[in-house]
Amino acid sequence: MMENIRIVLVATSHAGNIGAAARAMKTMGLDQLYLVQPRDFPSAEATSRASGADDVLAAARVCQDLEQAVADCSLVCGTSARLRRVAWPQLSPRECAAELIEAAARQPVALVFGRERTGLSNEELDRCHFLVNIPADPGYMSLNVASAVQILSYELRLACLQQQPVKPANMPAESAMATAEDLEGMYQHFAEALVEIDFLDADNPRQLMRRLRRLFNRARPDKMEVNILRGILKSAQQKARGK
Amino acid sequence: MMENIRIVLVATSHAGNIGAAARAMKTMGLDQLYLVQPRDFPSAEATSRASGADDVLAAARVCQDLEQAVADCSLVCGTSARLRRVAWPQLSPRECAAELIEAAARQPVALVFGRERTGLSNEELDRCHFLVNIPADPGYMSLNVASAVQILSYELRLACLQQQPVKPANMPAESAMATAEDLEGMYQHFAEALVEIDFLDADNPRQLMRRLRRLFNRARPDKMEVNILRGILKSAQQKARGK
Repeated sequence: MMENIRIVLVATSHAGNIGAAARAMKTMGLDQLYLVQPRDFPSAEATSRASGADDVLAAARVCQDLEQAVADCSLVCGTSARLRRVAWPQLSPRECAAELIEAAARQPVALVFGRERTGLSNEELDRCHFLVNIPADPGYMSLNVASAVQILSYELRLACLQQQPVKPANMPAESAMATAEDLEGMYQHFAEALVEIDFLDADNPRQLMRRLRRLFNRARPDKMEVNILRGILKSAQQKARGK
Repeated sequence: MMENIRIVLVATSHAGNIGAAARAMKTMGLDQLYLVQPRDFPSAEATSRASGADDVLAAARVCQDLEQAVADCSLVCGTSARLRRVAWPQLSPRECAAELIEAAARQPVALVFGRERTGLSNEELDRCHFLVNIPADPGYMSLNVASAVQILSYELRLACLQQQPVKPANMPAESAMATAEDLEGMYQHFAEALVEIDFLDADNPRQLMRRLRRLFNRARPDKMEVNILRGILKSAQQKARGK
């Protein structure tokens, strides 16, 4: 799918932004870069900012206009910070990524980024099926063009990964989770050891044990962690007994 | 909420990245920037790349180490591209943003970014409750640090926009959350007490402390719970000293 998705930069002024966009794309698994009338390309500045993504730059296609860049695409989305006089179908970056990924399974699609200062012209926006708007802070909307490429490439990668079964595994299991029995044994051990070391909530010992339960239940310890905690309790008990 | 979220850049080498990070933050409504031992700051290069976000740079706080930068934070998330020997709870950018936004409703929280080449050290990662991993392409993981700031700031803004006014916390707050400073004090106390009661992992004491950190960071103790645990340690120490 990803090889059917092209990033189109229209009339980019700063060569550094072209390089940074290539790097942003490559980190997210994209490599089809189209440049419409770049002011300064190829350039040393672009290559420097591309870091290890100079292969993306080397393979970039330079086009005369947007029409040529998207000619064979079945879906074209344009990024826009402005509101248009004529309302156009708008998508969030996430919605846009989902649409592009779905269409890219069959045919080439394009995501288009405008000039640094003025974005895309109305005539260029007319060539887009959808507009995508990155929800920047209304007080400071000055999103760098390579940063915009980064955000949308990231959303495209997430949408692509969601197509495949991914198990998240919040926390890689190093040891099996402690069972309720393991935990009860640990709490019993705590209660005994806390008496032996003279640590007591004199007013309300039950309250203290409840608080310890709440704390450790929240952490959901594994068996190894229960063993560590019980090892600590045992050492404290031995000391208390003067061994 | 957003003013309770700080972005911490650790030992950034390139001043341009600091400026680009400030710009990335500001487009997404963030303005709390902390710099731990920046190599070159303030600098003209940073100001130039910040574009109109030079107010964020001007207000940035420079810190001696990560400990100082996150001392008053109740939740600390660290970005990491690497796998660690001791597994640590991992979140996706989206999950991480949700956690940070929720916690930021009450207390300061931190999102930490490491060095350009080597990321965060193991000791720095130990200070994080969670690691967040941006799912870059395994074939080219070279995500620029300011681009990483951009992606996570974007997710934070989305999470903030989605947030409904004051939803009931899943855990009734009986006591304020422990800060990073509270937790460091507790871990220090653990380390001392475990020596006094002769509980040592002779092969690898660091490994043991890392496992305790992982356990308690997962539970995210409140101040009262930290006091209970330190009370237990103190009692064990007094017994060990024969009092």
